[in-house]
This record gives sequence, structure tokens and C-alpha cells, in this order.
Amino acid sequence: MEFTARQIADFLKGEIEGDQEVTVHTISKIEEATAGSLTFLANPAYTPWIYKTGASIVLVNKDFKPESPVNSTLIKVDNAYNALAGLLNLYQQSLPQKQGVSSLASLADSSIPGKNNYIGEFVVVGENVTLGENVKIYPHCFIGDNVVIKDNSTLYAGVKVYDNCVIGRECSIHSGAVIGADGFGFAPQSDNNYMKIAQIGNVILEDHVEIGANTTIDRATMGSTVIKKGVKLDNLIQVAHNVVVGENTVIAAQTGIAGSSKVGKNCMIGGQVGISGHLSIGDEVKIAAQSGLSSNVKNGKIIMGSPAFEHDKYIKAYIHFRNLEKLVKRIDDLEKQVNTLTDRSL
Amino acid sequence: MEFTARQIADFLKGEIEGDQEVTVHTISKIEEATAGSLTFLANPAYTPWIYKTGASIVLVNKDFKPESPVNSTLIKVDNAYNALAGLLNLYQQSLPQKQGVSSLASLADSSIPGKNNYIGEFVVVGENVTLGENVKIYPHCFIGDNVVIKDNSTLYAGVKVYDNCVIGRECSIHSGAVIGADGFGFAPQSDNNYMKIAQIGNVILEDHVEIGANTTIDRATMGSTVIKKGVKLDNLIQVAHNVVVGENTVIAAQTGIAGSSKVGKNCMIGGQVGISGHLSIGDEVKIAAQSGLSSNVKNGKIIMGSPAFEHDKYIKAYIHFRNLEKLVKRIDDLEKQVNTLTDRSL
Amino acid sequence: MEFTARQIADFLKGEIEGDQEVTVHTISKIEEATAGSLTFLANPAYTPWIYKTGASIVLVNKDFKPESPVNSTLIKVDNAYNALAGLLNLYQQSLPQKQGVSSLASLADSSIPGKNNYIGEFVVVGENVTLGENVKIYPHCFIGDNVVIKDNSTLYAGVKVYDNCVIGRECSIHSGAVIGADGFGFAPQSDNNYMKIAQIGNVILEDHVEIGANTTIDRATMGSTVIKKGVKLDNLIQVAHNVVVGENTVIAAQTGIAGSSKVGKNCMIGGQVGISGHLSIGDEVKIAAQSGLSSNVKNGKIIMGSPAFEHDKYIKAYIHFRNLEKLVKRIDDLEKQVNTLTDRSL
Repeated sequence: MEFTARQIADFLKGEIEGDQEVTVHTISKIEEATAGSLTFLANPAYTPWIYKTGASIVLVNKDFKPESPVNSTLIKVDNAYNALAGLLNLYQQSLPQKQGVSSLASLADSSIPGKNNYIGEFVVVGENVTLGENVKIYPHCFIGDNVVIKDNSTLYAGVKVYDNCVIGRECSIHSGAVIGADGFGFAPQSDNNYMKIAQIGNVILEDHVEIGANTTIDRATMGSTVIKKGVKLDNLIQVAHNVVVGENTVIAAQTGIAGSSKVGKNCMIGGQVGISGHLSIGDEVKIAAQSGLSSNVKNGKIIMGSPAFEHDKYIKAYIHFRNLEKLVKRIDDLEKQVNTLTDRSL
Repeated sequence: MEFTARQIADFLKGEIEGDQEVTVHTISKIEEATAGSLTFLANPAYTPWIYKTGASIVLVNKDFKPESPVNSTLIKVDNAYNALAGLLNLYQQSLPQKQGVSSLASLADSSIPGKNNYIGEFVVVGENVTLGENVKIYPHCFIGDNVVIKDNSTLYAGVKVYDNCVIGRECSIHSGAVIGADGFGFAPQSDNNYMKIAQIGNVILEDHVEIGANTTIDRATMGSTVIKKGVKLDNLIQVAHNVVVGENTVIAAQTGIAGSSKVGKNCMIGGQVGISGHLSIGDEVKIAAQSGLSSNVKNGKIIMGSPAFEHDKYIKAYIHFRNLEKLVKRIDDLEKQVNTLTDRSL
Repeated sequence: MEFTARQIADFLKGEIEGDQEVTVHTISKIEEATAGSLTFLANPAYTPWIYKTGASIVLVNKDFKPESPVNSTLIKVDNAYNALAGLLNLYQQSLPQKQGVSSLASLADSSIPGKNNYIGEFVVVGENVTLGENVKIYPHCFIGDNVVIKDNSTLYAGVKVYDNCVIGRECSIHSGAVIGADGFGFAPQSDNNYMKIAQIGNVILEDHVEIGANTTIDRATMGSTVIKKGVKLDNLIQVAHNVVVGENTVIAAQTGIAGSSKVGKNCMIGGQVGISGHLSIGDEVKIAAQSGLSSNVKNGKIIMGSPAFEHDKYIKAYIHFRNLEKLVKRIDDLEKQVNTLTDRSL
């Protein structure tokens, strides 16, 4: 499909500078764009590219003023990044969508596929599963007994959902994610063996949750592990039993949250962070990548390090750490001087 | 199913305080329990909840003495946590169990399903596989050629076991775990390319081993990667080729052990720990989360940091690290004072 | 199959010391080898084993001179490790190979299996997929629409490849790896919600790439995430959208690379390393395990720490860190001495 600059500007309620009739059929990065591409400029670091890009159309922020001639047609919008996001989503929705229930899927008689659902090849749907409308379940997914999956959610190929878990509306779960495996609970015995503690709870994903590829979210020992509305989890994240992650918190890849910890809402957590068990992390907390948390964190804190403390203080301490060699030299010198002074004063 | 306090106390050999005839039908956390629930109190941090819980029955340790009236019936036992674990396991065993060989599974003719086994939909069992009794293999598992799976073991949906691996008795392997993928072995060549080294060994899980979701255990180059009796591995753990993990060692999520390292028995290893290759870690070693090990560790050590050293020393060093800003200020002051003294002494 | 020392020495162009007619049927580690085994000695740490190994044949480097009698037949070669690698590969190639297209696989009509391919049970191949020759796709793999897989590549059980991705020649992808899941891209909105940004790009693996079990490589937002020729990725690695990893770079398990970062060629990256987004890492860079990179790195650097800096400097700083307790004691002493001196000088 092709669109003119005019059509796109109308859709985005933007203003055109340049040829209104130029057409595009794809979306590209500014440094790779060629004729027929639409691109965008939001990050100032990429500004030099706007003077040499081959793109036919560039979305820019309203306040962008070129300092040299630009070959592309500009469309000025309030927020070029959001506008691009809108176009990307539109583009993706225009692609053919999977539909229908494959004859190669295996659904228990007690589970009724909802309306307009896609259920791919070799999917297994257990007993008493409740599926909403417009649910997409790609091949090789396993949906355990009594699972609920609400409207407009998508499970990509190979997602495993254990018995009794609940997936909210408009959720996306990427390949290889495991929802509801047993929590890691063992009672130490006197002979150094461990007794397995049955994990009889479940996992609840609320609405608008995204779960990355190969991320694991364990079922609660009792009750529920809860991922609240709007939470976005990247790939290879571990969420242990009985954890609660608050609304609209985003967590980067390979982070792990140990059992029973509660993370507040609107937090931003970097990659490879570790959060010990039974902690309480406040709202709007920001945690630097690779930090390790072993104590509670108050609302709004920005923290770093392992064990983590205030980000600014960490940065300062770390600069001194890098310079410890020099610091030790200063102490060596001081000791010599003081010895000299002491000798002299006697 | 409902049980009276009397029945439960008899089963646990506990003593009742309160209504012997009150009934429960589920098990809950003390802070969420309502009428009809059994709960427990083991961690003193939760003691305040016993005075306000809605639970009908609370398991407590024999020495627990309420300081205010308690509405629930108490059952006093030697160890409330172990008693709870026993009840949870009983509860889980009372749930319907999967049975039989699905007509949608694919078993090689040379592989004979054992007695009382469950083999789910779309399972693939390769050539010459030996299955014990009471083995459960959930949908989408792949069992390579010549694999052995012994009695009473369970593989949840989507576990992949490569050729020639051995799974002991009473093991549980959670979804997405990969047992026996190639070790990461490459011989550097003069042109910066790497030559792949075929990995012809296998993985052996001994009895009573638990493997978490999406954990990966690589096959040995030659010989075996061995996970010994009673080992418990959490989710997303990496165990490289030719590693040996000793009996009853427990390892938290996202830890990685590099090639040929040996970990002793009865160790406790935190989450996101990294252990370099070719190391020897002793017995009863405790390793704090996010530690990095680059040298051998003796029996019984408790270590922390990256690179790791004695836990107590690490904690002290880290306190000074946090205060480096102040330390530098003290050195600045000393230098000024010493300069003054030096000037004065001349 | 059995081979004589003579046959093996001829194949490897090596020299024999000992019985030319002794036969072997397997390959073992030197410390575990028994009669009928071939083993090797490359790492000097294992030299004592050559005097007590039960192996019938030991591959050694040409310059190896025994200091005591050796029972085994020695085969002297230029590089014992490379020679072993060659034999291991030969051994593996001699094992029966999977062949043919399973009647239980599901291939879209628009996708034509190439020549001599293996497509296992319950594999799903989407629309318009292009398969080269000698491709092996093990059970439970999912190949999305428009995917290209070139000659001689192997996908082990349960690999998931999303739409439009490209797998080069001679690649190996291990079980559970996810190629082409959505990048982690969300535009923050004024109400603390995030708008999903459609990820319309793909992943390109060039030739001779190896991808470990449960590793995830996200598709680009626009354009391609690229893993260049000869790259070897271990297990449980995260590669985010729009990352480029340069030729012949090897990366150990559980490392994560955030969005849009470029890693050069011939790098060696340890396990559990974190690389922030939008960075440029040069060629021939070495990064110690568990390091965290938050700024660009020049060609040839060896770095360590989180945040990372020069390896040698890190090691020195860390030694001082371990001794901070003593350093603080020295400052305490200096302060006392200076106070005494100051009192005395007044």
C-alpha cells in the first residue's frame, strides 16, 4: 500500500513542508531510509541525518527548524516519536492477521473457543479453559486446565501457561514465556534433604500486560503472583512466587525478583537487576541496571549498586573507587610526612 | 473436600486449642485467609496477623503463646512450616492426576511407555527411550533418542531432553527447561574463526532433582554433566558442560556455572551468581546473590562480591565504599593540617 | 566402530609412540578414560593424568616429552586440542542422522521443503518460507511466515522463529531459542501508561552462527537486528532490538545487550555481562564476566567492573576495596597523630 504525504499528515493532524504528493510504502530508520520510505527524527543525536537521509518523508517535532536544506518532505507533529509509533501500529494492523481454529490443535471438550479467535497448530487447551474474544494463540502453546484468557490477548508460539492462571485483556506474551511454574519452595529437613512444598496458588496477569520471550513467572505457594495493569516485562525475567508488580512498571531484560517481594507502580527497573525476597519497593522507583536490592526502597528513590543505595551517592563513591590507587598513594605520603613531623617534633 | 480441625490435628499429631469441629476446605496465607481456610504462622514477622486473620484454623509452633484472644482454632505442632508443607502436598495429591498416553503423542516403535505413565499431546519420544513407572510427560515435551527417565518423574509442558541424557527418580523438570544442549566449545583458529567442538557427552540428573522453568543444562563435551541427588535448581539457571553440582545443593534463579566447575554438596547459592569455569567449590558453601566467583572456595565458606571473598569482610568493605566521599574528605583535611604543620615546623 | 592408532595417526597426520595396533571405540576425558578410549592432553594442568590414565591412546602436542613411563599409545600432533576437535566432529558425523519430512509436521502449501531436509514431528512451517538444502528442523520448531533458512543449518527441538527472519548457512540454533520476538519498545504517555510500538523489522543471522539454548534475539523496530558471520552465542543471552554483533565475536551465557548497541568483531564477552543501549563497542574487545557497560569502548580494550573500566585498573582498585578496613584504620591513626602534633605545635 502507498500513502501520500497529504494522507499521512491528515491522519496525524500534522503540517507539511515540501511535496504533498510524494508517496511512501514502508517505514525505515533515518540512517537507512531510501526513496519510498517514511522515517522520523525525535532523538537530537540523529539530527545530522535529516540533511542526508534518502527518506521521502520525515516526521519531525513541531519546533524543528532545519539549518540547511532538507530533500525530504517534512511532516510536523506534536511528538514525532508518538506519531511514528501510531504509524507503525497502523502498519502492523494492516498486515494479514491469523484466524480460525486449526484442525491440528487439541482442545478439551470442556473448553469452548471464544469468538474470532485464532488457535494455531499443535496448541493444547486443557479442561475448563475460558477464552475471550479476539484471542490469538500461536502454535505450540500449552494452556493448562481452568486457565482464563480475556479478550484481545495474544500468546506467541510456544507459551506455556500452567493450570488455574489468569491472563487479562490486551496482553501479549512472547514465545517461550512460562506462566505459573512452581515457585521455588522447599523446607529444609534434618538430613540435609529438602521437602518440596506444593505450590497451589496461581499467576494473575491484569490487563495490558506484555511479557517478553522466555520470561518466567512462578505461581504462588498460596494465593496469587500478580502482574498488575500495564506492566511491561522484557525477555528472560524471573518473577518468583507471590511477587506483586505494580501498575505500569517496566522492567528490562534478565532482572529477577525473589519470592513475596512487592514492587510499586510506575517504577523503571533496569536490566539484570536482582531484588531479594520479602522486600517492599515503593512507587516511581528507578533502579539502575545490575543493581542488587536487599532492603526496602521508598517511593521515588533512584538507586544503584549491589547492594543498592542512592544513585547519586553511588556514582560519587564509584568515582573514588576507581581512584583508590591514588587515594592510597596520598595516605602513603601523609604517613611519611607525619612520621617526619613526629620525628622532628620529638 | 472439607476437613475438621480434629481430623487435621490427628493427621499432624498436633494439639487443638479452640473449636474441634470447625471445617476448612482450602489453604491460604494468614493475611488473606477467610472463613473456611486453614493457614499457618511460622515467621514471627507475621505474628500480628494471628489476632486479625479470618482463617478458621491456624497451624502454630508448639511454643506459641497468644498475647491476646485469637478467633481461629489453633493446631499446635512441632514445626508449623513443615506441617503446612505436608498439608499442601496432600492437597495437591488430592487433585485429579493426568493419565494415559495421548493418541496425539508420537512415540518411536523402539520406545516402550512404562506402567501408569502420562504422555500428553504432541509429545515426541525418540528411539530406544526407557521410561520408568508413574512418569508424567506433559504436552510438547521432546525426549531424544536413548534417553532414560526413571520412576515417578514429571516433565512439564515443553521440556526438551537431548539424546542420551538420563533423568533419575522423583525428578521434576519445569516448562521450557533444556537438558543436554551442546556445551559451548569452540577451538579458536588462526583466521579468527572458531571450529565447533562436537559435544558427545550427556547430562545425568540423579534422583529427587528439581529443575526450574527455562533452565539450561548443557551436555558434556565427553563424559557427563552431573546434577546430583536432591539438587534444586530454580528458573533460568545456566549449567555449562561437564559441571558437577553436589548433593542437596540449592541454587536460586539466573545463576550461571561455567564449564567443568564442580560445586560441592549442601551449598546454598543465591540468585544471579556467576561461577567461572574449572573451579572447585567446597561443601556447605553459601554464596550471596550476584556474587562472581573466579577462584576456588573451601568447605563451609560464606562469600559475597564480584570477585567474591568472605561475606563479613565484604560487608565491612562495602560500608567503607559507601562512605568513600567522607573518607576522601578526611584525607583532604589531613593534607591541609599536615601542610600547616609542615610549614609551621620549618 | 573401532579404529587402530595407526588409522587415527594417518588421519591426523601424527606420529605414533607405542603400540600401533591398539584399538579405540570411544573418546573420553583423560581422568575418566579406560581401555578402548582415546583421550587428549592439551592443558598442562592435566599432565599428571597421562601417567595414570587408562586410555588406550592419548593425543599430545608434538613437543610433549613424558617424564615417566606412559602406558598409553601416544599420537603426537601439532595441536592436540584441534586434533581432538576434529575427531569429535568425525565421531558425531558418524552417528545416524535424522532425515525426511515427518507426516506429523505442518507445512503451509506455499512453503517448499528443500532437498535432503529433516523436518521433525509437530514442526510448523508458515507461509512462503524458503528452506535451503540439508536443513534440519527438529520437532516442535515454529517457523513463521516468510522466513528464510539457508543450507546446512540445524534448528534443535522447540526453536521459535518469528515472521520475516533470516537464518544463514551452517547455523545451529539450540532448543528454546527465540529469534525475532518483539523488541521492548514503548512510548510513555502522559497518564503513566505506555503505548506499544509495533516492531516491524526482523532478525538476520549470517552464516556459521551458533545460538545457545533459550537465548532470545529480538526483531528490530525497523530494519534488522544482525548477528554477523561466525558469531557464537551461549545460552540464555538477551539481544535486544536493532543490536548488531560483529563477526566472530563470542559471548558467554546470560549476557544481555540493550537496544541499538553495536558490538565489534572478534570480541570475547564473558557471562552475565550487561551492555546498555545505543553503545558502540569496538573490535577485539574483551569484557570480564558480570561487567556492566554504560559507555562506548575502543578497539582492543580489556574491561571489567560495573560500570566497567580498564581491567588492570579495576583489579588494582578492587584489591584496595578489599582492604578498605585497613585503609580506614590508617586514616584513623593519621588523624590521632596529626591531632597530637597539632596540640604539640601550639
